[in-house]
Amino acid sequence: MSDFPEFGKVVIFGVGLIGGSFALGLKAAGQVGEVVGFGRGLASLTHALELGIIDRVGFNTGQEVASADLILIATPVGQMPEVMARIAPYIGAQTVVTDGGSTKAGVAAAARAHFGEKLGQFVPAHPIAGAENSGAAAARADLYLNKKVVLTPLPENSVLNVARVRSAWEWCGAQTHELAPAEHDRVFAAVSHLPHLLSFALVHDIAVRDNSGLFFSYAASGFRDFTRIAASHPEMWRDVCLANRVALLEELDRYRAQLDELRDALHRGDGKKLEETFDVARAARRAWADNKL
Amino acid sequence: MSDFPEFGKVVIFGVGLIGGSFALGLKAAGQVGEVVGFGRGLASLTHALELGIIDRVGFNTGQEVASADLILIATPVGQMPEVMARIAPYIGAQTVVTDGGSTKAGVAAAARAHFGEKLGQFVPAHPIAGAENSGAAAARADLYLNKKVVLTPLPENSVLNVARVRSAWEWCGAQTHELAPAEHDRVFAAVSHLPHLLSFALVHDIAVRDNSGLFFSYAASGFRDFTRIAASHPEMWRDVCLANRVALLEELDRYRAQLDELRDALHRGDGKKLEETFDVARAARRAWADNKL
Repeated sequence: MSDFPEFGKVVIFGVGLIGGSFALGLKAAGQVGEVVGFGRGLASLTHALELGIIDRVGFNTGQEVASADLILIATPVGQMPEVMARIAPYIGAQTVVTDGGSTKAGVAAAARAHFGEKLGQFVPAHPIAGAENSGAAAARADLYLNKKVVLTPLPENSVLNVARVRSAWEWCGAQTHELAPAEHDRVFAAVSHLPHLLSFALVHDIAVRDNSGLFFSYAASGFRDFTRIAASHPEMWRDVCLANRVALLEELDRYRAQLDELRDALHRGDGKKLEETFDVARAARRAWADNKL
Repeated sequence: MSDFPEFGKVVIFGVGLIGGSFALGLKAAGQVGEVVGFGRGLASLTHALELGIIDRVGFNTGQEVASADLILIATPVGQMPEVMARIAPYIGAQTVVTDGGSTKAGVAAAARAHFGEKLGQFVPAHPIAGAENSGAAAARADLYLNKKVVLTPLPENSVLNVARVRSAWEWCGAQTHELAPAEHDRVFAAVSHLPHLLSFALVHDIAVRDNSGLFFSYAASGFRDFTRIAASHPEMWRDVCLANRVALLEELDRYRAQLDELRDALHRGDGKKLEETFDVARAARRAWADNKL
């Protein structure tokens, strides 16, 4: 740990799980002088203050962001354009901005629309550290420890600005990676956004039945794991789905075509086709788990 | 624990996770004199013997089942009719038979076809204790501890025979419940079989891509939990799907209709519809988890 923190002043928009854990991570690393929080609700900001996540609640946006070393936009992605529009005129020449959104092409486009000449100061990021709990109370200094954070730098970013943003996430314990925004969105549509949609859909499908209690009473560990992500934040996931609509539609259609095939196999009693599909899936799932562990 | 075991001799067909854990559970409770195992492969039987799951490998089916107090058929459901046909002529007058299959209407129909006058001695059961690992090595004495076992008694079962089978599962630590076979299959198609199919389908869908490595490298905890059941036993799940084809097709079609609705909402950018769906799912998932814990 150096004697002086790398970031004197950090401003966070949206002090929930993602923003709060970022603040706590930088604090734990001794790499931040002061954290100022902005948010939609005074109650959650007060809570973040009580938990020591932020040092002050921000009121004057222009003044706070002008003197910030680092800004994190950690709102649901649907609100990011508005935050960008609010801060763009005021951010200082030395300020770098990053975000914690789960989709990146839309965020990059919004940044392009709002930051103008300061676009080079915004380095988009996606921390892969979901949790079904949200809000400041769920924030933890070690949320990002050994987790991946995908940076999707823009052509306008200087090497220095990318390095500063990378450094911030790495002080939180993360392993940083880089993808192009569109590539990022295709990958996460498949491995994250689609599974969330499918899990929400399954629980909804059961919940709306008259006799849902009978069904839920026999749901066991397979159901529990499959549906853990269906307890995720509805507004956040609405925004993710909308922000990544094109890639998600493509993945969803691909998946529906696969379900149609399995439906046909099941209908005609084609056990061979079913077993082959399950076999490929099991081998891939096991190889994935072995690599991860 | 009583001085004498409730079941002097137990014969198990299929000494894997389900059959092996049943044997170990009864042994741990001191409620079995001797366990004899039958199976397709000598290697797995030898393994079960070495692990103390069974006391002997059975060779003469007729002789072994004639003197059995309790028989468990714990093969994949696709092989149960064959086992039933093999044992039906020989089971003793005091023998009760149960099974560990995940579907029940087909098993009940097979029993009706094969057990003839002895049908009343067969009490179908479904232990709700899945695990993605299979085989004798995965068997544990406490697999059924505090887990549900659903009995689906047949009209021909005597109260005494149901009680004896219930007792065996309860000695393994299970909580027993009763459903009609068809009702059982409808419930489990929705809360277990469909999620397995969906999870297998997602992993397969990614695994068959040329660049699957890129996708898997960014898969995180949401993917991990959603796909845990895609590491399940392909042959077992093929059999479950086929055995519960009618109810599973019904659930799958219902689910596909729901996906179509979400697809339309996503396509037209209907955030309200998406959020409402996610919201209902989250509330139901949380209520379910609160009830379970």
